[in-house]
Amino acid sequence: MKAALLYGARDIRVEELPEPKIRQPGDAIVRVLLSCVCGSDLWDYRDSEPLDIPVRMGHEFLGVVEEVGTEVSLLRPGNVVVAPFLWNDGSCFYCQHGLPTSCLRGGWWGAPDVDGGQGEFVRVPYADATLVPAPVAPDDGVLPALLPLSDVLGTGHHAAVMSGVRAGSTVMVIGDGAVGLCAVLAARRLQAGRIIMLGSNPARTKLAQSFGATDIVTERGQQAIEQVLELTGGIGADHALECVGTDLSWAAALGGLRDGGSLGFVGVPGGVTDAISVRQTFRRNLSIAGGVAPVRAYLPELMPEVLDGRLDASAVFDRVVDFAHIPDGYAAMDDRSAIKVLIRA
Amino acid sequence: MKAALLYGARDIRVEELPEPKIRQPGDAIVRVLLSCVCGSDLWDYRDSEPLDIPVRMGHEFLGVVEEVGTEVSLLRPGNVVVAPFLWNDGSCFYCQHGLPTSCLRGGWWGAPDVDGGQGEFVRVPYADATLVPAPVAPDDGVLPALLPLSDVLGTGHHAAVMSGVRAGSTVMVIGDGAVGLCAVLAARRLQAGRIIMLGSNPARTKLAQSFGATDIVTERGQQAIEQVLELTGGIGADHALECVGTDLSWAAALGGLRDGGSLGFVGVPGGVTDAISVRQTFRRNLSIAGGVAPVRAYLPELMPEVLDGRLDASAVFDRVVDFAHIPDGYAAMDDRSAIKVLIRA
Repeated sequence: MKAALLYGARDIRVEELPEPKIRQPGDAIVRVLLSCVCGSDLWDYRDSEPLDIPVRMGHEFLGVVEEVGTEVSLLRPGNVVVAPFLWNDGSCFYCQHGLPTSCLRGGWWGAPDVDGGQGEFVRVPYADATLVPAPVAPDDGVLPALLPLSDVLGTGHHAAVMSGVRAGSTVMVIGDGAVGLCAVLAARRLQAGRIIMLGSNPARTKLAQSFGATDIVTERGQQAIEQVLELTGGIGADHALECVGTDLSWAAALGGLRDGGSLGFVGVPGGVTDAISVRQTFRRNLSIAGGVAPVRAYLPELMPEVLDGRLDASAVFDRVVDFAHIPDGYAAMDDRSAIKVLIRA
Repeated sequence: MKAALLYGARDIRVEELPEPKIRQPGDAIVRVLLSCVCGSDLWDYRDSEPLDIPVRMGHEFLGVVEEVGTEVSLLRPGNVVVAPFLWNDGSCFYCQHGLPTSCLRGGWWGAPDVDGGQGEFVRVPYADATLVPAPVAPDDGVLPALLPLSDVLGTGHHAAVMSGVRAGSTVMVIGDGAVGLCAVLAARRLQAGRIIMLGSNPARTKLAQSFGATDIVTERGQQAIEQVLELTGGIGADHALECVGTDLSWAAALGGLRDGGSLGFVGVPGGVTDAISVRQTFRRNLSIAGGVAPVRAYLPELMPEVLDGRLDASAVFDRVVDFAHIPDGYAAMDDRSAIKVLIRA
């Protein structure tokens, strides 16, 4: 099968690998229909050391169940399934408490001896717990709207939930990537009264508006904060959804909040070097919450709304490649000529 | 009148000052019946530079209204009133949104030209908004239980509220000072299933147990974290109430939390020098919330429970001085021979 492998910075290669086989009785083999490239893939893509043992890439995919192990009871060959960006056992303390991202026996796609999502087949551990079946055919037009449930839609939703977005509240979204755009959708879904998107790329801010953004702030840094304050009568936003993960984005998020406001963060903090000033948050009673989004826990709530068309983030995919051209997809994400690249079998 | 003034490190003097007068139509003059020394007073007491202009001390007091300005409508001379540790106007955005500590026109007791609570009389700005009358006589025995509403009881409550303590949850309290002890009371009031107090002073941990602590961890640092993990089946606490404000206490609070747990912090972060590792909180989905407690907003909810005896933190006062002996009270708090010193007129 074809699969994408990272060999070093800006060195992604698609190679032929053996197809995976069932190893554990809870495994399933999934033939990938759709996959994509994530903003977080770019951290490794840009900064990786040369790797002696290449890493399998991709953690967002949906596909068709080809084969199941003897202990799989909820899935059958032929089922279309969505995979969350981590696999989890479904039975540990954290899986039982709504936080499968902290599963005591779970792990990452592409970990040693685990397949990545940017390949034609994936062996899925704990398949009953990890995968969520969708009642659609493998050629259903809704598939590109289901794929964001694998990561970015659930991740934007997590930012909104963790920051406590409520009906009528004023929300600031930092980041015009796929996650930021999905955070706009999530804030609208939670009936935010006002959604202020920080972003300067016209195509992306236009998409943000179609997703529900009511105001666009095109400035950056201190100017962006001042524009947010101006838009909110000098007070600031109730909630900030941080979807980038750099010092600059954190400063904008904290600076644009009103006292007592809350920051929900889901941007992998790869570029956060500064200390978070607890003295500042203390004086202003700011809350900070967020992290790796437990998208598996959100899937049962969000999938029905995607299936009936109420929730559709598929417009974040503005470029399509096949497996052979995955390296082109990375390059397009890297130079920001694409928001998010869809990989189609 | 007698009032306490800070002249420099460990240099508190009680001096004769002119009695305050009404200046603004919203002012009231309060004759102080009870005041006390706060753990946060000790930061200045220990570290102050020598001061050319001494600072009036004290921000926790209750007393009798002596005189009111022409625009005061909710208070009458003779009313017993509790003052929160900040004064606020009651009408700004933040006062209207439950966060009077961020009042746009409020301020600190002991600010330039403002009286402190460790004195015989206090001019109270925005008296209608700032003061909360209690339906008791000036010699009522409940007064020492009402005084903690001025700061420590509402502050412990804030830690519990901001960390989201719920019925049945496992709560860790870091700090055996008056605020930590009040946080135990607050956690019990919110029906926490288990309250683990970190503290090594036998008198204080005994008091914590009488307030509702179910487990005492006497170790410090990494040993304390391991003890909390052992008590919680290797998982950690749902909530940590941080009532100290040092690197060591923050490390214990974050280290003892389970993934997805929340930290409510109210310890003035005077001793926090380390960066809060957003990468750690990201991976583990930890929430951090808290700050200067809006005790004025909590007073209407908590005071009835104090008046009917359900909520009684008065045992935190384990030493009593009169105005002339306030310096002895600071010394007793400084060497930790007293938990909290009551100042009685």
